[in-house]
Amino acid sequence: MNEIKHRTHCPISYALDIFGDKWSLLIIRDLMFQNKKTYGEFLKSEERISTNILADRLAMLECAGLLSSKQDTENKSRKIYSLTAKAIDLVPVIIEIINWSATYDFETAAPKEFIARIRTDKQTVINELTAYLKSTL
Amino acid sequence: MNEIKHRTHCPISYALDIFGDKWSLLIIRDLMFQNKKTYGEFLKSEERISTNILADRLAMLECAGLLSSKQDTENKSRKIYSLTAKAIDLVPVIIEIINWSATYDFETAAPKEFIARIRTDKQTVINELTAYLKSTL
Repeated sequence: MNEIKHRTHCPISYALDIFGDKWSLLIIRDLMFQNKKTYGEFLKSEERISTNILADRLAMLECAGLLSSKQDTENKSRKIYSLTAKAIDLVPVIIEIINWSATYDFETAAPKEFIARIRTDKQTVINELTAYLKSTL
Repeated sequence: MNEIKHRTHCPISYALDIFGDKWSLLIIRDLMFQNKKTYGEFLKSEERISTNILADRLAMLECAGLLSSKQDTENKSRKIYSLTAKAIDLVPVIIEIINWSATYDFETAAPKEFIARIRTDKQTVINELTAYLKSTL
């Protein structure tokens, strides 16, 4: 896969060139919160990503340095994906998105307790999740 | 334009259904930081959005409640767009994206002073920008 072409070096545009689509942050979410690690696990997510988009997004995210992969030792045809430090540094973006959606989606599936913690002690939530994810690197 | 269909009520998915594309947050950026207000002004942005995508994104953002528009009193064929409170509440998301991109894009165009302020006193930056934008509602 070719390197990502950036339209400009505006920081919003730079980020959108990497994850400005309907799926990439859902894959990051699955790795961050659901402990999913394989193509088959991502494919089963509720939003029903198609096989070709999933394969494309995984390759793109690896190319952009947000995911790393290794061969599964138990099943050599399977890849195990993990978040890189660059992806883990998206935790504050993800937490702010969750907070925003929980405000405006009256049917939000975000757990009430988690939202309450974000609203009373956001920095601790960010620090703890980041530390946990970095401990798995 | 039809109402936005949400794939699930996962808070990440909900947000991406609205602004998970390469352009919507650039329009929000133009309104937040560049004082742009019209179709013609958005069209001139450096990333070179096409006319049909711009028209589509403006309609979608208005439908999603992130933009409001009114007829320009000086030029009745022109619309003046403004951010709603729902869009202004994206300030923390935008600030975290800027911070992340400034870390990883070695050619970032984000002003150094602004990044330094985000890193030393993020909450004040968020509060000030939010208050300024809400004062224009």
